[in-house]
Amino acid sequence: MQRDHGGDLDRARAKRGGDDWIDLSTGINRVPYPVPALAPEAWTALPTANARDRLLQAAARAYRTQAPMVALAGAQAAIQMLPLVLGEAGRTVRILSPTYNEHAACFSTAGFTVEPVDDPAALVGASIAIVVNPNNPDGRLIPPADLLALRKQVGLLVVDESFADPLPDLSLAPHAGEPGLVVLRSFGKFFGLAGVRLGFALGDAAIIARLTAMAGPWPVAGPALEIGAAALGDAAWAQATTERLSQEVPRIDAMAQAYGWALAGGTHLFRLYETPDAAAAQEHLADHRIWSRIFPWSPRLIRLGLPGMECEWLRLAAALER
Amino acid sequence: MQRDHGGDLDRARAKRGGDDWIDLSTGINRVPYPVPALAPEAWTALPTANARDRLLQAAARAYRTQAPMVALAGAQAAIQMLPLVLGEAGRTVRILSPTYNEHAACFSTAGFTVEPVDDPAALVGASIAIVVNPNNPDGRLIPPADLLALRKQVGLLVVDESFADPLPDLSLAPHAGEPGLVVLRSFGKFFGLAGVRLGFALGDAAIIARLTAMAGPWPVAGPALEIGAAALGDAAWAQATTERLSQEVPRIDAMAQAYGWALAGGTHLFRLYETPDAAAAQEHLADHRIWSRIFPWSPRLIRLGLPGMECEWLRLAAALER
Repeated sequence: MQRDHGGDLDRARAKRGGDDWIDLSTGINRVPYPVPALAPEAWTALPTANARDRLLQAAARAYRTQAPMVALAGAQAAIQMLPLVLGEAGRTVRILSPTYNEHAACFSTAGFTVEPVDDPAALVGASIAIVVNPNNPDGRLIPPADLLALRKQVGLLVVDESFADPLPDLSLAPHAGEPGLVVLRSFGKFFGLAGVRLGFALGDAAIIARLTAMAGPWPVAGPALEIGAAALGDAAWAQATTERLSQEVPRIDAMAQAYGWALAGGTHLFRLYETPDAAAAQEHLADHRIWSRIFPWSPRLIRLGLPGMECEWLRLAAALER
Repeated sequence: MQRDHGGDLDRARAKRGGDDWIDLSTGINRVPYPVPALAPEAWTALPTANARDRLLQAAARAYRTQAPMVALAGAQAAIQMLPLVLGEAGRTVRILSPTYNEHAACFSTAGFTVEPVDDPAALVGASIAIVVNPNNPDGRLIPPADLLALRKQVGLLVVDESFADPLPDLSLAPHAGEPGLVVLRSFGKFFGLAGVRLGFALGDAAIIARLTAMAGPWPVAGPALEIGAAALGDAAWAQATTERLSQEVPRIDAMAQAYGWALAGGTHLFRLYETPDAAAAQEHLADHRIWSRIFPWSPRLIRLGLPGMECEWLRLAAALER
C-alpha cells in the first residue's frame, strides 16, 4: 500500500547527497507558525478533555462553524478512518479526479469500488462523493453554492478542504452540521507544522460521532492540542500569512513562466506547471538541491510549494534562470 | 463508548478547585525523561521514513527484539486497531481479567464476542487470547515460558506489556517474530511522556504488516519520533529509573500499609491497595488534592501511581498520616 507522496526528501537526499535541500515537494507553508512554549504537562500527562475542548473551540472560530467536530492526527487520519466508519464495503465512491491519491487508496483498501470522475456533474447520484476544494494538485475551485446543491444529490458529500485556509469564503464549514456533508480540514499545511499531526473532520453528526468513537480517548498528542489552539486562535497571523502568500504566488509564477513553464493551476500553498518533461524538470531542480513533486499519471506536470526565506527564493530563482 | 480511565484530573479539579493537584490516577512515571531539544523539522516537516527507522532501531534494541514492528500513536492506538485488522467479527476473544478495559471495549465495538476469564488456563483453546503482563491493575505476572507454551495453544496470543519496561526478562519481545504472537509496548508510561502518544506493536509479520498499512504514512508525530529514539536509546536512564522505582515501591507500600490499607498488587509504576471503602479513600486523598484511581467493578480497591518529586512524597505521606 505504498503510495507516492510529497515530503519524501530523504530519498532525494540519499541519492544525491548534500544537506541544504529546499523541500518544495509538498504544499506545506515554509514560514511556519512559531511553536509556542509548551506546558510540561503537554508532554507528560495524558491529553485532557479540557485541552481538547480548547482546541475545538479555537477551530470552530477559525473555521466559522458550529458543526459537530473531531480533532484527529492529521487530515490524513480522517481520510484513513472515513471508509472504516462508513462501513458497507462494496458501495461505490466517486472521486473528482485527479486529486490527492489517499482518498481512492483508503476507500479501495476498505473494499469500496472507486470511480474517478473528471466532471463535477458526474458526481450527481453518487452514494458517496469526494471533492478536494481547492483541488490538489490543480487548484480547481468549486463554488460553495454548487457543492451545497450537490450535497442534496448524493448520499454523502465529503469535501477535503486541506488547502482552503487562505480562502475562508470557499469553505463549506460554516454551512456544515446537516446530515450528508463531512468537511475535512488540515492543520499542518497552512500553519507549516505538518510534523504536529493535526486535522479535523466536521459536519454530519452521526459520522462525526463514529469517527470520535473510533479515534479513542487520546487521538491527538498533548503538544498538538496546545499548538493547535494557539495557532488557530491567532487570526492576525492567519491574515498576515494569507496576504504574504497572495503576494508570493505571482512571484513564483513569474519565475516559472520566464523559464518556459505554463501555469496549470495551484493554490496559495503550491503551484502546478506544465513542462515539456516533468522528470527532467525535477532532475534539473534537484541539481540545485530543490525537491519538487511530479506525478505518475502525468509526464508533463510538476508541482512546487512556495519557498520560505528569501535565500530559498534566490536559490529557486537561480535554478530557473535561463 | 466512554470508558473510565485514569488521567481524568480535569474532573476532580473542576469539582474541588485548586491547581496544585498531584495526579496519581495513572501509571505514568512522574519523573519523566527530559524532552531533548528538537530539530525544527520535527515540527514543520512531514515525519520522514529515516526518522521512523531511527526510532524503530532504538526500540528494537531497547526491547531486545528483531521481530517486525510498527510504531503507533500509543499502545492505545494498537489496542484500537488490532480488532480492525484481525477482521472476522463474530469470533470470540478471551481476555485474562480484570484488566485494562480498552481491550474488551475495542474488541466488543468491532463485533467480537468478549469472554473475560480469571484463570490463565482458561485461555487455552481460544481463537484470540489477550494477556496484560504485568497486569493492570493487580500486577499479576505470568512467566514468559508459560506464555510461550500458551502461544501454541491459541490462535493468536496478544501480550500487552505496557508496564514491562522495568522487567526486561519478563518480556516476550525477544521471542517474538513467529506467527501467532503480538506484543504491545507503551512508550509514555515508563518514560513519563504520555502526551507524546507513542507505542509499538511487534511480532507476527502478517499482523504487523496489516497494522502498518492501516496506520498510514504518518501515524506518529515528528517530535514523537525524535523523543522516542532518544529515550529508548538511553539505556543508562532506563536503568537508573528502574533502580529508583524499585527503591520507591517499598516506600509507598509502607505508607499505605501504615494507614491500614492492604497491598493487593502492583508494578513498578503503580500500586493497588485494598481499603474498607475505595470511594471514601479516594475522597480522602482528594481532600489533599491527590487524585487516585478506583474501579467500577470493585468497592474496595484503590490504585496509586508513585509520586515524583520529594514534595509530592511528603504530600502523600501527610495525607496518609493516622
